[in-house]
Amino acid sequence: MAWNTTGLDELPVYEKLVKLARSPFDLAAPGAMSPGRIATYKASAAGFDLIFGTQRLDDTVLNGLQQLADQSGAVDQFLAMKRGAVMNRIEGYESENRQVLHTACRDIFRDPPDNEAATQQAKKELETLELFLAQLDRGEVTNAEGQAFTEYVNIGIGGSDLGPRALYLALAAYAQKNRRVHFISNVDPDDAAAVLQGLDLARTLVGVVSKSGSTLETLTNEEMARAAYARAGLKPRDHFVAITGHGSPMDNPEKYLRSFHMYDYIGGRYSATSMVGAVMLGFGLGYDAVIEILRGANEMDRAAEARDIRKNPALLLALLGIWNHNFLGYDTVAVLPYSQALLRFPAHLQQCDMESNGKSVNRNGEKVSVATGPIVWGEPGTNGQHAFYQLLHQGTSIVPVEFIGFRQSQHEVDLKIKGTTSQQKLVANLLAQALALATGQKDTNPNRFFAGNRPSSILLADRLTPYTMGGLLALYEAKIVLQGFIWNINSFDQEGVQLGKVLANRLLDHMTIVGRGGAKDRSKHPESWAMLEAAGVFQED
Amino acid sequence: MAWNTTGLDELPVYEKLVKLARSPFDLAAPGAMSPGRIATYKASAAGFDLIFGTQRLDDTVLNGLQQLADQSGAVDQFLAMKRGAVMNRIEGYESENRQVLHTACRDIFRDPPDNEAATQQAKKELETLELFLAQLDRGEVTNAEGQAFTEYVNIGIGGSDLGPRALYLALAAYAQKNRRVHFISNVDPDDAAAVLQGLDLARTLVGVVSKSGSTLETLTNEEMARAAYARAGLKPRDHFVAITGHGSPMDNPEKYLRSFHMYDYIGGRYSATSMVGAVMLGFGLGYDAVIEILRGANEMDRAAEARDIRKNPALLLALLGIWNHNFLGYDTVAVLPYSQALLRFPAHLQQCDMESNGKSVNRNGEKVSVATGPIVWGEPGTNGQHAFYQLLHQGTSIVPVEFIGFRQSQHEVDLKIKGTTSQQKLVANLLAQALALATGQKDTNPNRFFAGNRPSSILLADRLTPYTMGGLLALYEAKIVLQGFIWNINSFDQEGVQLGKVLANRLLDHMTIVGRGGAKDRSKHPESWAMLEAAGVFQED
Repeated sequence: MAWNTTGLDELPVYEKLVKLARSPFDLAAPGAMSPGRIATYKASAAGFDLIFGTQRLDDTVLNGLQQLADQSGAVDQFLAMKRGAVMNRIEGYESENRQVLHTACRDIFRDPPDNEAATQQAKKELETLELFLAQLDRGEVTNAEGQAFTEYVNIGIGGSDLGPRALYLALAAYAQKNRRVHFISNVDPDDAAAVLQGLDLARTLVGVVSKSGSTLETLTNEEMARAAYARAGLKPRDHFVAITGHGSPMDNPEKYLRSFHMYDYIGGRYSATSMVGAVMLGFGLGYDAVIEILRGANEMDRAAEARDIRKNPALLLALLGIWNHNFLGYDTVAVLPYSQALLRFPAHLQQCDMESNGKSVNRNGEKVSVATGPIVWGEPGTNGQHAFYQLLHQGTSIVPVEFIGFRQSQHEVDLKIKGTTSQQKLVANLLAQALALATGQKDTNPNRFFAGNRPSSILLADRLTPYTMGGLLALYEAKIVLQGFIWNINSFDQEGVQLGKVLANRLLDHMTIVGRGGAKDRSKHPESWAMLEAAGVFQED
Repeated sequence: MAWNTTGLDELPVYEKLVKLARSPFDLAAPGAMSPGRIATYKASAAGFDLIFGTQRLDDTVLNGLQQLADQSGAVDQFLAMKRGAVMNRIEGYESENRQVLHTACRDIFRDPPDNEAATQQAKKELETLELFLAQLDRGEVTNAEGQAFTEYVNIGIGGSDLGPRALYLALAAYAQKNRRVHFISNVDPDDAAAVLQGLDLARTLVGVVSKSGSTLETLTNEEMARAAYARAGLKPRDHFVAITGHGSPMDNPEKYLRSFHMYDYIGGRYSATSMVGAVMLGFGLGYDAVIEILRGANEMDRAAEARDIRKNPALLLALLGIWNHNFLGYDTVAVLPYSQALLRFPAHLQQCDMESNGKSVNRNGEKVSVATGPIVWGEPGTNGQHAFYQLLHQGTSIVPVEFIGFRQSQHEVDLKIKGTTSQQKLVANLLAQALALATGQKDTNPNRFFAGNRPSSILLADRLTPYTMGGLLALYEAKIVLQGFIWNINSFDQEGVQLGKVLANRLLDHMTIVGRGGAKDRSKHPESWAMLEAAGVFQED
């Protein structure tokens, strides 16, 4: 194997970093935030600058982090992943045993790509999509009345919802005229009802996304949507599109207008740039925008191959995260985009990061001896400033922050008030928060005292476009898998979600039995029966 | 003073709880989740059941928590607050020195209320609102063309946005015909642009919410909205409504169709049941729904006066939080509503909780010696199950969870699939997750092993209605202030947000100077200049 099989704490540089962490750089010391430091601690790639002078480190730590990258073979593993190594596995135990090739979806701009087979499949799907979108544009695919489709409902959950939704909302400013996209994800029947009741179903395409074709929430919501079409006297076959695995129960031309395919080597939370996101984004934003997203993602994927951490923002962000989490002991990370359009990007990252790296065994099936993935949360600024920033500045918990911002707005509708535009205010606030967290402020009133010395990074690009959104997505995907490589965990499975499913089915079985008038046989699983009784759910039957 | 002036760790019961925390109840032990435990560990009030058998405690700990409540005088302080004590202050230092009377807004159902003066003011505002809403309904207040208003845009930030927005989205299923509400909050110009461009401004009321009448984000967005009206040839005075303090710059009948008032004794994050939420909710849902929200909140406020923690869900939730945070050492809490309509309720709680309790000095201005407010985060289930639950079940961090659920759906549009409705699936999943976190599961495959013993609580009500939404809001408000009382901190100020504002203004001054062609004088605040240069924001001028 080309990658490490040891934990973070077995790497030679680990003890050195532990020692350095005992007296980390003090951001609040007089003169600490020097212009030289701020200018120098900056790494750039694929349209993004990562400004990190507001992290608690100096050149010695930075060199240590470079060694950590080198000793763990993080970049080698990343390259092996892109080329098709079977990275999704646990050595010696039954596991998914799959390649990890989400990067192949966007490796369409050079020849040969890192993995020929996967990129060929991606290109084929893109051709199918391009044709379908052209048919919609030319009026060759319409509803039964010959009208164009103006709405699209994406039915999916988890990776089939969060990433695609985050991308669409981020880029809705560039939506095509008369094209809007809506989302149904939750098994909560009110979610589907609320979305469907506001739509002209006759003008709506419904994209159902499930790799296995058997995701319970998605099938349930699809049935609710099909029932709504039936009530409206419309044929679902004219409106429903499937995005699913080859040969899944959903891969059925009799039920769907079109099928687009997804592959086992792309996990749900890494699938936004596959057909999972592309069909919906193509409808809403157009095919060219999809290609621009892929181009930005591909450029960031390639930047993430750099071995010099100063030239690789994804790797550097991964290492800064490990420094804060494993060495300085901060348990969470807040992702705070200063862009309202990124309002659901933190929710996507919650899945992508926490489902990937919220693990307790390493790739050899041994219990890990260091902390793995942190808790990821966040909301857009400046809104957050009026919400939870009080705790960031003066709380007893320290929260490392990853700020994300843009120099220009999307809509270009702006006003100068008190001498500056809203976009300038937005950027000024972002930079000010990073400075305030770092420097703090002395005050004789203890309630107005800020200890400072709270770490953050800033990711900046010119404008939130399809290209930079692709880059941002890929930057975080790379950050997450690089951290997983360094922790020596499998960032690509999710066995931790299985137990809840099993128990939910057990409770549903109990409910079905009682619903049919059967007896409450408590001899098996008394705790499940007790929970249902305590919750009072039987009274409604 | 009627309340404690000592910290949590100075109360007699503190050491006892520290000792008990060394061997807390093991939820994963065989038979630990007994039917008796599940049935007994339940507290109910105002339409909600709090099921807490899945917390790591037994009767001994519960008695200790009762003593903690008693010794801290938490309920006495809560009563003092409701009656008008000046709770928003730091002893011996300059501070806001205000009463805390958000509970008075909804104490309108009995005579005399806890605080006569504040409740009289609330009733007067409600009368003004009732009249205004009736005038809208009767067509006595219309646009210049005599048409009814169908849309409402709420412009506010922080407490003038998050709580009201969470309530509206929670209850949008009950919206009046031809009434829709939209929100603009972020200073990001794309936020205002995206909302305004989709609206028929002629049919739109705009509610501007700022107590001081000088919140920069809100004024900026108001100006953007007024500019849009001017471009459309419409008079803002016919469309704009002010919700502001008496005598603020916004309290101006020449600029606004109506003014509604808010008072200094209600902090922004506690203001959702004042005119801050009521005007918008009244437009969208009707006056009766507003009164039902107040009724639910008032009933929960009164339930929160109970000294027996088994009869007081708000106090019990507060104590469970302190047990998990201060004694078991868990730094975050996830609020996971199994209701898509509550999608923004966690964001409201982030503000209400973290801005209230993210503090480092106590009410005497001394540095606290124990952890104060935790990091609050969350997303609706079942969506979260397909996102970050992997970490909840198998991550190296333990995250206490507060589940929220309802036995029935709002829309009553549901389908039986595989023998159960979607609503049943939703509740079954919620209960199953609590059980799975608690019991875990043995497995010979280490990657499929669940350690369990991870704590959670479940809040359940019959249905998410205006009444239960009011109760849920008040339950969390009470939880938060009760925790603050026990920590002996001031949960009602937010000095921690000031430094960021000061630094943002400094950066904006720099940008304005350079924008006017002035020199970059780096002799003062070199770090601010350096940050702007590193961010590359000058190149655009």
